[in-house]
Amino acid sequence: MSVKPVLDRIDHDLDQAIERLKGLLRIPSISTDPAYKEDCKDAAEWLVRELRSLGVNAESRPTSGHPMVVGHVGDSGPHLVFYGHYDVQPVDPLDLWKRPPFEPTVEDTVAGKVIRGRGAADDKGQLMTFIEACRAWKEVHGCLPARITFLLEGEEESQSPSLIPFMKENAAELTGDIALICDTGMFDQNTPSIITSLRGLLGEEVTIIGPDKDLHSGLYGGAAINPIRVLSRIISGLHDDTGRITLPDFYRGVPETDPAILAQWDALGFDEEAFLGDVGLSHPAGEQGRTTLEMTWARPTCEVNGIWGGYTGDGFKTVLPSKAHTKISFRLVGTQDPEKIRETFRAYVQAMLPPDCRAEFKEHGAAPASQMTISDPAFERARQALSEEWPNEAAFIGGGGSIPIAGYFKEILNMDAMLIGFGHPDDMIHSPNEKYDLRSFHKGIRSWARVLDALNR
Amino acid sequence: MSVKPVLDRIDHDLDQAIERLKGLLRIPSISTDPAYKEDCKDAAEWLVRELRSLGVNAESRPTSGHPMVVGHVGDSGPHLVFYGHYDVQPVDPLDLWKRPPFEPTVEDTVAGKVIRGRGAADDKGQLMTFIEACRAWKEVHGCLPARITFLLEGEEESQSPSLIPFMKENAAELTGDIALICDTGMFDQNTPSIITSLRGLLGEEVTIIGPDKDLHSGLYGGAAINPIRVLSRIISGLHDDTGRITLPDFYRGVPETDPAILAQWDALGFDEEAFLGDVGLSHPAGEQGRTTLEMTWARPTCEVNGIWGGYTGDGFKTVLPSKAHTKISFRLVGTQDPEKIRETFRAYVQAMLPPDCRAEFKEHGAAPASQMTISDPAFERARQALSEEWPNEAAFIGGGGSIPIAGYFKEILNMDAMLIGFGHPDDMIHSPNEKYDLRSFHKGIRSWARVLDALNR
Repeated sequence: MSVKPVLDRIDHDLDQAIERLKGLLRIPSISTDPAYKEDCKDAAEWLVRELRSLGVNAESRPTSGHPMVVGHVGDSGPHLVFYGHYDVQPVDPLDLWKRPPFEPTVEDTVAGKVIRGRGAADDKGQLMTFIEACRAWKEVHGCLPARITFLLEGEEESQSPSLIPFMKENAAELTGDIALICDTGMFDQNTPSIITSLRGLLGEEVTIIGPDKDLHSGLYGGAAINPIRVLSRIISGLHDDTGRITLPDFYRGVPETDPAILAQWDALGFDEEAFLGDVGLSHPAGEQGRTTLEMTWARPTCEVNGIWGGYTGDGFKTVLPSKAHTKISFRLVGTQDPEKIRETFRAYVQAMLPPDCRAEFKEHGAAPASQMTISDPAFERARQALSEEWPNEAAFIGGGGSIPIAGYFKEILNMDAMLIGFGHPDDMIHSPNEKYDLRSFHKGIRSWARVLDALNR
Repeated sequence: MSVKPVLDRIDHDLDQAIERLKGLLRIPSISTDPAYKEDCKDAAEWLVRELRSLGVNAESRPTSGHPMVVGHVGDSGPHLVFYGHYDVQPVDPLDLWKRPPFEPTVEDTVAGKVIRGRGAADDKGQLMTFIEACRAWKEVHGCLPARITFLLEGEEESQSPSLIPFMKENAAELTGDIALICDTGMFDQNTPSIITSLRGLLGEEVTIIGPDKDLHSGLYGGAAINPIRVLSRIISGLHDDTGRITLPDFYRGVPETDPAILAQWDALGFDEEAFLGDVGLSHPAGEQGRTTLEMTWARPTCEVNGIWGGYTGDGFKTVLPSKAHTKISFRLVGTQDPEKIRETFRAYVQAMLPPDCRAEFKEHGAAPASQMTISDPAFERARQALSEEWPNEAAFIGGGGSIPIAGYFKEILNMDAMLIGFGHPDDMIHSPNEKYDLRSFHKGIRSWARVLDALNR
């Protein structure tokens, strides 16, 4: 089976592929917000129909959260297990979207055409590059060039509570030769990449409670403890002046990056100025003495993702609030232990509480960092296939995000995972006006067609 | 004209007085929120009708904000100028209200009957004690015992932007012998008070802006500045470990309280444990080495009234926010200059900004502290009249709130202001489930009847 006619078919059918993607993007499958539960179910069923139209034996399987889409096709060739997720991030602040987030359009921009809408890049557009590559193979050759198992999740944006139990319960069915994951980015516009390390993630929500009701600052101001002040002290104490995180033993398990790898990263010619400049910044704000690539690929972080308390509406209200809240996450590397760090963090918060204040905690997931083994020759074959599609050679690079599924494939199913994706830093994933470059979508489909071909050799 | 039949009439007509108050409480006149503009107008017109039914020549006068209700009645006796405000605070968090905030009811509680609803104490219930006392005088004697000018404002909860220009433009009309203001509390359940000092208030809103859009912490975490962290450092730097405010020259103009006055306050037998215990606290959290009364009556404060930024909904979102916001207020004493402190505060914020961050400021009012002159014998006569109504002798005390109108009467119209009110710390003004004790309402009306009588002697 030759890949050439498959690539031609992809080029010829691009408009229909875009229409299919738009259909999926119209479904507001926000997994973290219970109000969108039915929409998540709709998205799962949409994918089941899509996979069945390719001859895949697919179904939507219930979990205690959102459904898991599982499908199987083929019985010869290498057994590839493809993972993607159909859920998306919330859309707030909604007023910053130039168009409604679930009414996808193709737009002309100075940098080329883009598909705009929530989930365009993360991860609906990306997962559809793989499905469309399969569609083209099927239409040209009547079958796929490999045995493929699909695993499409609906809880990736809400800490995947059902994923581990589901993988364990269905281990035999989900185990193949190698996992393919399409949820990452390219190194730059012209350089595709395979991610070889990912950071872990620990999520915590903290509520500081002072007075047992909101107070008037004219009556109590000066005498009553203010939980926003307490929370601010807690947050500002988490980093020292050099950008290092102050929690005891936080850096246990954080390796110094191998100088050979640092040298390899340097050789990539990363444009720090453009990376930061794209989002209105000019100074890397992490640990002093580290490069931006090291800060985002190889160093742990502690970030405040949200804070709220007291009066936040128009005008002014001289209230002394009873409570202040924050959502904080840690990106982890090496062998940092998320549960240990959760314990240390909570002990730190407790120790910072003045009299009359207490803290409540809520956990939002914990996943260690992943390091891929790329000794399987399939990795090099895939890298060469990607290099044929794009102007520059494909690179093995680090990743700053957290895609726990890669680690789960290793731990639970003993499979290596190959992380190939076509996103860019300016895709505004998790932000208003998310987009996916039409070039990423088009050449992404072509890339998967080539990778499928390469892995079947 | 004797006060005795007036007091009897008040007792007899209490139920109707409560119904009238409920009518006013049903109008959601939230001045700070533009959505309630028409309701503020309705409340003003409601009061005009009420005053006209007492023979007052009243009207609702437009301003650039909410209307001012002005009325005149009588032409002999001392000329008293009564001030109250018909606007109320916002009602959020709405889910903490046990009943809808604008459906007032009389409830039995372990501490006696209360009128519950937004504005019950601040200030609709209080201003109605004066109007009901006038009604009883009028109904018993056919006229009031003094010449009275009413000035009822609709912007007190939103920094009174129209008040100063209005007072200046209508100075001749609004100037009398003494101002009466009903917007304060009693010293305790059995001890009425006349407030002789009030704190000033400075309101500021700050937005810290880092990246020019919300970012994904997997891509940018470690490299991009986080404005919530920056804001937390700014807030936590505003106080030192002893509770003092760190802004340069902040304490310029803050007098040490006269030991004689401190001794007088000590003699009041203030129950600090009960005051704090009522709201779930046990430690006065202000400047070390000060009593709670000093902290709330005689010392300046800096409070965070609100904070928000990033993702604040259900679940979790690993966003690096572009912006973080806070609303901060300062209570001022002595001769502290609000505009100087605003300048110092803004300079402090600017100096705390790291590279790539900027700050935007919005002002929310500025009023200096007020110190009343009580040499006019009317003050002592009013104190004695209050003492006749209540179990304990009335006291001259300090006030922790900010009622700039008292200072404006002095500065603009050269009148002393007498601050008499019947609120209690547990009235939950500015909070969910605001209430006004029925005893405060009833004995408050009787108190004003006595004070009007005493001032006419």
